[in-house]
Amino acid sequence: MLTNTLIELLKIEYPLVQAPMAGGVTTSKLVAEVSNAGGLGMIGAGYLNPHQAREQIRETKQLTANPFGINLFVPEEFDVMDGEVNSANQALKPIRHQLNLPPKEGFEFPDAANVQEAFADHIQVVIEEKVPICSFTFGIPSEDVIADLKRHDVFLIGIATTVEEAIENEKAGMDAVVVQGSEAGGHRGSFMDGNQEKLIGLMSLIPQVVDEVSIPVIAAGGIMDGRGLMASICLGANGVQMGTAFMTCQESGAHETHKAAILNAHEDQTVLTRAFSGKWARGIENRFISEMKRHERFLPDFPVQNVLTKDIRKGSAGQKTPEFMSLWSGQSPRLAKRQTAKELIQTVMEDVKRISSNF
Amino acid sequence: MLTNTLIELLKIEYPLVQAPMAGGVTTSKLVAEVSNAGGLGMIGAGYLNPHQAREQIRETKQLTANPFGINLFVPEEFDVMDGEVNSANQALKPIRHQLNLPPKEGFEFPDAANVQEAFADHIQVVIEEKVPICSFTFGIPSEDVIADLKRHDVFLIGIATTVEEAIENEKAGMDAVVVQGSEAGGHRGSFMDGNQEKLIGLMSLIPQVVDEVSIPVIAAGGIMDGRGLMASICLGANGVQMGTAFMTCQESGAHETHKAAILNAHEDQTVLTRAFSGKWARGIENRFISEMKRHERFLPDFPVQNVLTKDIRKGSAGQKTPEFMSLWSGQSPRLAKRQTAKELIQTVMEDVKRISSNF
Repeated sequence: MLTNTLIELLKIEYPLVQAPMAGGVTTSKLVAEVSNAGGLGMIGAGYLNPHQAREQIRETKQLTANPFGINLFVPEEFDVMDGEVNSANQALKPIRHQLNLPPKEGFEFPDAANVQEAFADHIQVVIEEKVPICSFTFGIPSEDVIADLKRHDVFLIGIATTVEEAIENEKAGMDAVVVQGSEAGGHRGSFMDGNQEKLIGLMSLIPQVVDEVSIPVIAAGGIMDGRGLMASICLGANGVQMGTAFMTCQESGAHETHKAAILNAHEDQTVLTRAFSGKWARGIENRFISEMKRHERFLPDFPVQNVLTKDIRKGSAGQKTPEFMSLWSGQSPRLAKRQTAKELIQTVMEDVKRISSNF
Repeated sequence: MLTNTLIELLKIEYPLVQAPMAGGVTTSKLVAEVSNAGGLGMIGAGYLNPHQAREQIRETKQLTANPFGINLFVPEEFDVMDGEVNSANQALKPIRHQLNLPPKEGFEFPDAANVQEAFADHIQVVIEEKVPICSFTFGIPSEDVIADLKRHDVFLIGIATTVEEAIENEKAGMDAVVVQGSEAGGHRGSFMDGNQEKLIGLMSLIPQVVDEVSIPVIAAGGIMDGRGLMASICLGANGVQMGTAFMTCQESGAHETHKAAILNAHEDQTVLTRAFSGKWARGIENRFISEMKRHERFLPDFPVQNVLTKDIRKGSAGQKTPEFMSLWSGQSPRLAKRQTAKELIQTVMEDVKRISSNF
């Protein structure tokens, strides 16, 4: 029953993709274990430089002979405005104080040209290392990049949070699209104006997308087990992408404090915030989110705010307090477990078998 | 496959409940047609007085021999504060002006005692007319009311928007619970503090609820066809409640302008607002919602604001302009169709059969 185009195209056993969570979560071990267990492991390379990405690709190849993929952030135009940076540092001051961190002024960041250059280098790494699957967040790459990757037979996966974004992905030549529901943890992958705040639940989003595109659809957001996978298939998706469920796995590189926070959280404790990065993202509510709430809409855009809060997130993790960390989580933390990636995938597929047998 | 406790308990053919949309949508014809076609028709009696409710129950009985139900709003404490009412009327002034409606001052409303009395009378009507199923919105009735209804073998259905609310419903003795996802159109049924704004998608909400309660769960929010019904069952629900899908049906009493707005809307055009009624509700964004946005958090609570905007909603509908009407809709308007209730139910069940056969 779960044999479909997506499985055939990706050359995997199960229609189950491990979400490419950036920031050290997707260790080579996690990615490889997922692919070894029949799913699709994904390297979240959003915060890696091209050299680090190449290293991790090579390391992962040592651990699995099965296909795995990589995810890149599509760079966006951004401005660094002194006034905005100063206000943000001002708003962050009491938080740095609570963490005993030194005060900070100004901003150091590679200029926009470098970000574009780094993206071009990343694409070359993907091609040179023959990574078979490449997915994108925060946008659709340029025609040239798409053509280049396609010439080298890389399977391309885009992201959409609305029907219109899904259509744009198909038009641009993406081979499949991840459809991210409002339930999803971490950053909204939206790339069209105002869409970060258009929070469409998967029950609505999947069927409306599949009615309008013909490329395979991968559902993402709140899916943690075989029930979610089966539901997504019924709604018309070809497979699922699971993030939070892999976050608490043994092989995940998430900080222990972050894992513990998810394992203790309820479904009504996550909120959307742009205070950590300048982009809307879903995480478990903590002191940072509530104290920054009134500043939230005036903070600099991604990636500026993300760079500004780096010392705070790192300092909070170092002090093992969850209160100022970005505790990304989808809306189903009650379903999270401590287990290996292999156990998770096996349980999902057993659930699927059990549910299917009822029909 | 779809034979389950809920169907047996409700004595219906399909696990498909028509949402009890208040305000004239659930005509006797709609309710009866749904029950005749094997679903459960529901009278939305939230804005009816006990006499009107009795009349509609009797009329519906003439049109169907199958079971149908009724929904009541559980009355909440509310205050009418002059200052708040005056500010709200002030904020509504430019809107009344655009609609050429006479300016309004003050407020006329039955006092709180009457609301409680009317609720008690409604319960007696349900018992006297032997309505077999009664569901509740905005709360759980008192122990006495529950005991009284149970003594008369009325099947009781509560509403929940979080796991905790579902648990409270089970504890109070409800026989089943509607689990309302963030996708749902119309009013949030939440009754615990702050929950109206905790928007949990069905993909997350259903499995987390069914893991914690043992009464049957009915999923509501964005479900429009057999795909949504099958998905809900896979997630662990026993059935679904569909609102928007019935709203555009031929037998629905919704204003033609409202039906047309849904049929032309996209998934990203609905928003949550409390400007119409003082309670958060999802509808298609229009001029009323955007012009009232900045006042939204300072308006009186339900039902005060609802009474204050009555002339505006009515005036807008009378002038056939959708811009100041409450165009309630879930997040799946692209899936709405003009059809009869019977056609809708038949298509849903054909979809279900087709999807089941794939497993």
